[in-house]
Amino acid sequence: MQPSAAIVKIIDDIFHPRSIAVVGASKGHTSFGYQYLQILVESGYRGRLYPVNPQEKEILGIQVYPSLEDIPGEIDYVICCINARFVLDLLAQSSRKKVKAIHLFTGKLSETGDEKALQLEEEIKKRAQNLGIRLIGPNCMGIYNPGERIAYNHDLCMEPGSVGAIIQSGGLAGEIVRLAALRGVRFSKVVSYGNAADLNETDFLEYLLWDKETKIILMYLEGVKDGQKFFKTLRRVTKEKPVIVLKGGRSRAGAKSVTSHTASIAGSISTWQVVLRQVKAVQANSLTELIDLCTAFYFLPPITGNRVGVVGGGGGKSVLAGDEYEEAGLEVVPIPDEIIQLLAKMNPKVRRWLVNPVDASILASLNIESADVLRCMAQSPYFDLLCINSSEDSLFYKDDWIAFMQSYMNEAVKIHKEGSKPVIAVVGNPEIGISQVDNWRWQTLFRLREQLIREGIPVFSSAGQAATAIVKLAYYYRYQKAEGYNK
Amino acid sequence: MQPSAAIVKIIDDIFHPRSIAVVGASKGHTSFGYQYLQILVESGYRGRLYPVNPQEKEILGIQVYPSLEDIPGEIDYVICCINARFVLDLLAQSSRKKVKAIHLFTGKLSETGDEKALQLEEEIKKRAQNLGIRLIGPNCMGIYNPGERIAYNHDLCMEPGSVGAIIQSGGLAGEIVRLAALRGVRFSKVVSYGNAADLNETDFLEYLLWDKETKIILMYLEGVKDGQKFFKTLRRVTKEKPVIVLKGGRSRAGAKSVTSHTASIAGSISTWQVVLRQVKAVQANSLTELIDLCTAFYFLPPITGNRVGVVGGGGGKSVLAGDEYEEAGLEVVPIPDEIIQLLAKMNPKVRRWLVNPVDASILASLNIESADVLRCMAQSPYFDLLCINSSEDSLFYKDDWIAFMQSYMNEAVKIHKEGSKPVIAVVGNPEIGISQVDNWRWQTLFRLREQLIREGIPVFSSAGQAATAIVKLAYYYRYQKAEGYNK
Repeated sequence: MQPSAAIVKIIDDIFHPRSIAVVGASKGHTSFGYQYLQILVESGYRGRLYPVNPQEKEILGIQVYPSLEDIPGEIDYVICCINARFVLDLLAQSSRKKVKAIHLFTGKLSETGDEKALQLEEEIKKRAQNLGIRLIGPNCMGIYNPGERIAYNHDLCMEPGSVGAIIQSGGLAGEIVRLAALRGVRFSKVVSYGNAADLNETDFLEYLLWDKETKIILMYLEGVKDGQKFFKTLRRVTKEKPVIVLKGGRSRAGAKSVTSHTASIAGSISTWQVVLRQVKAVQANSLTELIDLCTAFYFLPPITGNRVGVVGGGGGKSVLAGDEYEEAGLEVVPIPDEIIQLLAKMNPKVRRWLVNPVDASILASLNIESADVLRCMAQSPYFDLLCINSSEDSLFYKDDWIAFMQSYMNEAVKIHKEGSKPVIAVVGNPEIGISQVDNWRWQTLFRLREQLIREGIPVFSSAGQAATAIVKLAYYYRYQKAEGYNK
Repeated sequence: MQPSAAIVKIIDDIFHPRSIAVVGASKGHTSFGYQYLQILVESGYRGRLYPVNPQEKEILGIQVYPSLEDIPGEIDYVICCINARFVLDLLAQSSRKKVKAIHLFTGKLSETGDEKALQLEEEIKKRAQNLGIRLIGPNCMGIYNPGERIAYNHDLCMEPGSVGAIIQSGGLAGEIVRLAALRGVRFSKVVSYGNAADLNETDFLEYLLWDKETKIILMYLEGVKDGQKFFKTLRRVTKEKPVIVLKGGRSRAGAKSVTSHTASIAGSISTWQVVLRQVKAVQANSLTELIDLCTAFYFLPPITGNRVGVVGGGGGKSVLAGDEYEEAGLEVVPIPDEIIQLLAKMNPKVRRWLVNPVDASILASLNIESADVLRCMAQSPYFDLLCINSSEDSLFYKDDWIAFMQSYMNEAVKIHKEGSKPVIAVVGNPEIGISQVDNWRWQTLFRLREQLIREGIPVFSSAGQAATAIVKLAYYYRYQKAEGYNK
């Protein structure tokens, strides 16, 4: 067995525990001991669940055990929510119970910068190593595996998908899954691993490379334990699966925060950028971009061309879309003559007037349907990708506008399903306040967005965001193709 | 009277008509003749309203006149929604009725690229000039003046404010006002002026410079009629009022769209950028940035420093906020010793652990309130600006989380009201689908956003967006201060 095969087996077991003990489960609503139990119950975890707390008899209707050793059955996985000073004792108990892996939600260790806490973390690490117990953490959220109905946060989507994620932060681990889920992205396995005293980013990367359910990998990193090993592994992975990386701690301030957050060394960002480019990782520069990239890779085929046809939205919106697509690096090619000829049969005025991006108001005054133009583009060899554009402004009012938009979107979905070209959509995301929630205009956008996503069309909030993601995706796949790697 | 004073008078009359005739009003829901009438009725226009159509007797309960000349009273302003080929005749009638200004919603003129349409526009322009009638348009939405309850689009906010806007596009004219209104921005006067056959961007700029209700000016431009005159005027204006400019048609594709949209010549973007910088205009690169800049200028005082203190949000969110603020050009300064000393009295662990941006999870484990740190920063001379950060991830669940967030926001509002430092907030804007509208988590964000805005705190969707806007704002005011201009 190679070392990486051994790690794969260990992590695969962690993602598929037949039983979980939550040590430090309590009745206090705001305690994480209570919350982990509540989350596992709500998410519908089907294995055996053992809360551990010497002071409780029962929590959420589940029998509580005074200690690990009082649990009758085997324990595959322990979620540890107790104070750091009790962790060494827990390790001893775990060893006697033959526990193989512990997730230390427990924090206030090296990230505090406190000398004693640092020493304690070091001791925990060594003791676990000696006992043959593997650790996730400390100071992290642990694992999310919708296939096993295991979650680390409330209300996470329990439908499995193909994105595996390695997220050093705890808060972002919940936020990334939640925001990506709104965009239609579903996950295979996610780990939030914090200070990485034992299992680290490279180990999880090896695992997700091996994991057949994972097709796309997403990483939020603050630092790495062994740079050389990590980048070597990453290079192997990007040959087979796209890896999207958001590096936190790029700036002086960010780097300081990194130390107080996960006790990592942020490293020089210019080095990071260069090396990530060399190993063909897809780099995200913000949380927004990470989610956009994830959405693009999740929904789109391996696009290598960059000629885009854009239809819909008013005049100003079309002008700006043209600017944003081109500035990001896509080619907003002219509408080819054969399409103009075809449309001129409906209305000869198109000849001088119609350009790409195609303005929906012009089409409306020419009595040509947006979908007709989109369909022509879908059948033309001059486009690699189509974009459904939309505007918040309404050519018509209320029901008339809704009917107009809905009809275009329905036709666009049909064109998407015919499958001749990849299709994306741009639907604005107004920053509403609570009193605007029931407004028909915003509700229409929410409804259209959901419909498009359900039908398999990736939706972005702006042309610029869509374009930035697609340019990076096409770059990745062009390289893959040129090098003749998998896909 | 100087020429600019004459123009100011003419445009001021246009923005304050005592009567409006809607020529081409009809009963067809999707016709703009119907919609303009409906919009003016709904917005509560208090002047006299005269629909004109030889085929109708009454629309929306209002008496319809067969022609302009059948209208008994005086007509200050005409909204023209009839086909372009009838416009010359309308000009003749208008002249006999002593109409001073016509808004030509009517399009399909020079923007179509058609030779005959181009000639017709030229003829309309000359005829109006000879008759002494001023034109807005053709091919545009006209005017929005909430103070007079005049609007060009449905459901626009009727509360007046201090932003004046000059928007060449029609669709964006509605969209910009609507999106900015969600952010708490209110407008003084807005014009959408399309092909600018007569009154153009420079005329409206002169007017908004003079207009006392207008403190901030926003422009969406596709081209200008007389570059030299425009930039000279712009230079005069930026000495007194900030002017935020979004230039559409920066790319090859965008420039082509510009011609088919408003028949403008887009011009070289590098020239635009250089000249806009020289005349101290504030440049926006996208619609999103335009709205962010408008929000910043609307709510914030003339900040000239750039040292920011950030409090709230989890660890990863804080790391990324630090990165995004610094990358945009703000200084995320270290927490000064006196604040650390003060907080160390509550918990000595802050000494090594606490950094700026301040992680709310660390504060929670130290039993220190986020608001306590924010208040210390508000009283410290080391910060120019404070940022309330937030996360979509929840440290606690549902009611506990809502109470936690609400309590921080309430305290933050108090600190804002004490007025010692400008305060901004970052609240995420999840891209929800219709089935997520009632979700308690997103509703909480919508509620908090609305509360903060109501209390006068500008809210941004991400740290990066906030920082980009603030850096540009501080740059503008630093220059103003250095040159000793008004403000």
